[in-house]
Amino acid sequence: MGEREELVLAYRILAAHGVVDAYGHVSMRSMRNPKRYLLARATAPELVTADDILEFDLDSNPVKDPGVPLYLERYIHGEILKHRPEVNAVVHNHSPTVIPFGITTVPLRPLCNTAAFIGEGVPVFEVRDFQDSGDIIVKTPHLGAALARTLGRKPAALMRGHGAVVVGESLMLAVVRSVYLELSARLQMQAMLIAGPGGKIVYLDEREVAATTGRQASAGTWKRSWDLWCAKAQAQIDAERRAKRRKTAGGARRMRRSK
Amino acid sequence: MGEREELVLAYRILAAHGVVDAYGHVSMRSMRNPKRYLLARATAPELVTADDILEFDLDSNPVKDPGVPLYLERYIHGEILKHRPEVNAVVHNHSPTVIPFGITTVPLRPLCNTAAFIGEGVPVFEVRDFQDSGDIIVKTPHLGAALARTLGRKPAALMRGHGAVVVGESLMLAVVRSVYLELSARLQMQAMLIAGPGGKIVYLDEREVAATTGRQASAGTWKRSWDLWCAKAQAQIDAERRAKRRKTAGGARRMRRSK
Amino acid sequence: MGEREELVLAYRILAAHGVVDAYGHVSMRSMRNPKRYLLARATAPELVTADDILEFDLDSNPVKDPGVPLYLERYIHGEILKHRPEVNAVVHNHSPTVIPFGITTVPLRPLCNTAAFIGEGVPVFEVRDFQDSGDIIVKTPHLGAALARTLGRKPAALMRGHGAVVVGESLMLAVVRSVYLELSARLQMQAMLIAGPGGKIVYLDEREVAATTGRQASAGTWKRSWDLWCAKAQAQIDAERRAKRRKTAGGARRMRRSK
Amino acid sequence: MGEREELVLAYRILAAHGVVDAYGHVSMRSMRNPKRYLLARATAPELVTADDILEFDLDSNPVKDPGVPLYLERYIHGEILKHRPEVNAVVHNHSPTVIPFGITTVPLRPLCNTAAFIGEGVPVFEVRDFQDSGDIIVKTPHLGAALARTLGRKPAALMRGHGAVVVGESLMLAVVRSVYLELSARLQMQAMLIAGPGGKIVYLDEREVAATTGRQASAGTWKRSWDLWCAKAQAQIDAERRAKRRKTAGGARRMRRSK
Repeated sequence: MGEREELVLAYRILAAHGVVDAYGHVSMRSMRNPKRYLLARATAPELVTADDILEFDLDSNPVKDPGVPLYLERYIHGEILKHRPEVNAVVHNHSPTVIPFGITTVPLRPLCNTAAFIGEGVPVFEVRDFQDSGDIIVKTPHLGAALARTLGRKPAALMRGHGAVVVGESLMLAVVRSVYLELSARLQMQAMLIAGPGGKIVYLDEREVAATTGRQASAGTWKRSWDLWCAKAQAQIDAERRAKRRKTAGGARRMRRSK
Repeated sequence: MGEREELVLAYRILAAHGVVDAYGHVSMRSMRNPKRYLLARATAPELVTADDILEFDLDSNPVKDPGVPLYLERYIHGEILKHRPEVNAVVHNHSPTVIPFGITTVPLRPLCNTAAFIGEGVPVFEVRDFQDSGDIIVKTPHLGAALARTLGRKPAALMRGHGAVVVGESLMLAVVRSVYLELSARLQMQAMLIAGPGGKIVYLDEREVAATTGRQASAGTWKRSWDLWCAKAQAQIDAERRAKRRKTAGGARRMRRSK
Repeated sequence: MGEREELVLAYRILAAHGVVDAYGHVSMRSMRNPKRYLLARATAPELVTADDILEFDLDSNPVKDPGVPLYLERYIHGEILKHRPEVNAVVHNHSPTVIPFGITTVPLRPLCNTAAFIGEGVPVFEVRDFQDSGDIIVKTPHLGAALARTLGRKPAALMRGHGAVVVGESLMLAVVRSVYLELSARLQMQAMLIAGPGGKIVYLDEREVAATTGRQASAGTWKRSWDLWCAKAQAQIDAERRAKRRKTAGGARRMRRSK
Repeated sequence: MGEREELVLAYRILAAHGVVDAYGHVSMRSMRNPKRYLLARATAPELVTADDILEFDLDSNPVKDPGVPLYLERYIHGEILKHRPEVNAVVHNHSPTVIPFGITTVPLRPLCNTAAFIGEGVPVFEVRDFQDSGDIIVKTPHLGAALARTLGRKPAALMRGHGAVVVGESLMLAVVRSVYLELSARLQMQAMLIAGPGGKIVYLDEREVAATTGRQASAGTWKRSWDLWCAKAQAQIDAERRAKRRKTAGGARRMRRSK
């Protein structure tokens, strides 16, 4: 499978898990040229196909003039990939259950195996600190670089009033973390509800975070989720193609009959 | 695509997002005659087809005698379209997560990018202030006009114990706002839960609301959601047609065999 | 459509809305003989077909020896139909969001149009008051009669630690009420969450309940939900039949080929 | 149906109910040799087929060298089956709504008919008490045995920061309990929400738990859920096979045409 096809699956997986709505996006660094990255043209994740994938330099300019609209927030990808040479994939999403944490002073905390990476830290990006325009989105290189600095060496950052950015050394890792960030936010809300104000919640401690994420990396843990999700996304793409062929064929057949 | 086909898609999109149940409806002002509007006959949104769309004057009388039952609450559409010449589409829904806000004193507040319009204000319509009958629905021109006055220049109004009304300069905008109003209500509930009583929540401020909604309007932001949702709604309609043809054909085949 | 086919649709509709799990059931009084009622043999709602429907007398004895297992709790149906001559359909369910209200002292209250009937009263049946065995289910005529007395003239009753019973003058009404009881319980939870302890919630008042339920009965309101849900249930049944025929045909074809 | 096919259905049922994600697993004791058990190779539940099922001894060594990756946590199954001769099936899951109870001091309590077994006790396993490595999972015979001791004679145990283990005398019972443990956790959260801090909740008492679980065992209650869920899982497997055949056939047809 080529890079573009893999990126299409990532788009579809994020949509299938409700981590992106019509406005999220995911990029991957080009394997042939680390100064370039791949990202779709401005399209909803569920509609992305390999033909929609474009190549950008790290200043987020398209390598060829695409003649199509681009994501206003593509600077998120370019600036993070510039500041984090070991990162090869970036997800920007409006992950719903994550948004409430970004607008309160309650930090996301690690509480289960699959989301142990939260224990490495999930800072909150306050866009008000870096611009005067009032617009909430990250639509300039300046804001992209500010977000990259807030993210620092962490796996993810919340964006106040907006969503989140999640990164990984691989496309798989960025996607997996995005899915489990959403899940973990839900579980934390529920734990807070049943514990009540001031109630005790046992989060993973530093040693648990280190040991758990270390084992996940070395044991190839995420491939099991990834293979499952890719299989389901591919089945969905196949079903869409069949429906399209059937529609075209059915239309042609009815046209012949009516002659 | 004709006006009626577009309105059918709007009905289907609202149903697919759980924003309308069997009782919601959506209207659009006629492009040929601003004193007229299109609305389905009394039908559940998921069953609406182009043949069900009727034309009404702004007093909510059908232009031709349709010989079919009409929505009792069609006055919502006529009266708002009368009071708001710049509005071209009106959604009335029982958007579930919005209802609890209508029956408490907790106002909906803007907290994220896609629902920034909430910051323009979402008043609550108290039907008790305008009638004595006790029935909760808006089934007279008088109540429709009262609701239109409560709505004022705002993008949406809650209806206490009932649902909401959402408007837009375009059909797309009224639908998009309806979907994100429901989402934002859920996120606000969750933020209130984790912040706890009296806890701090950072809502979008006035300048953020203005800048964000302004950019959304000028950048054509909503078309990305709209195109996705229309594609999915159309695929659903196509699947229904295929199932219907298959059923008819299968019945005919079995009938021939049994002869 | 015959009585049995209509009852099958009711089973499917309740399952599709998550109001019944594998253990709920719905009965209807026989149109030919008001001293008899129809109910499925002990089967999960999603698997019920017309062949599974049996006839019972009001003591809940099957009219013909069916040679198949029966619901242990069929006395719920017989005893309520005995005590309520105007009732023609009874739903017993484990409607999930309703269960928490049955085990707390928080009463269900009417808060929206479609669930206004809650304002007529939803008492709680405490099985401990009527038996010593400790088993939580209603598996004797004695317990069925006690439940019928607790229900009184009301549209529904909660069963502590178990579920609910919902009745109606028609099958449509019992099903519609079951669906909206579940929805209204969710909205009430959410309203309580955002209002906070002691916070104000505006429920429908007596006059509103009377006017709203009265209009719903006279205007044929529920037929719009009912027609939609029946259409979807029928489409599901059709799809199951096609899958079954295809499976049988596919097996036969592969068998011929392998000869 | 053979043992392996039944175990495949169990995997699919757990996935369909959201009780397992890509990482849960379910085992059954071999009917021919009680010192052996069946478990899939390291695969996501939704992808498991009969060919993936392997046989292990009670020390969790595969009987034949499989040449494929194994679940790191298979010791959960072996050690529990060793300590509980009457148990014939073990589910390990990351049942989402159950996790918050494992990280707070709020015990799961029995509150409804289908989850009455919770009243027999659901202890919490604190992995910190049994190891120093910090890794949260049960990946050694030592930890598996510690978990088995914490479980004791109970039907289920929560694993702090991780998930749960659920057992049964039959595969059906372990699966049914897993599904209803998840449901009951949700209902308990909701009851706690509406009751408020210190509010009264009526849980099933000891006699009710004993009478209800006793009746469920003797009356064959669970078979109704089980048959429904198996039918749905089998339909899903059939649909996957059809899609696969269609894809292969379609590819071959297009290849012939292009010659």
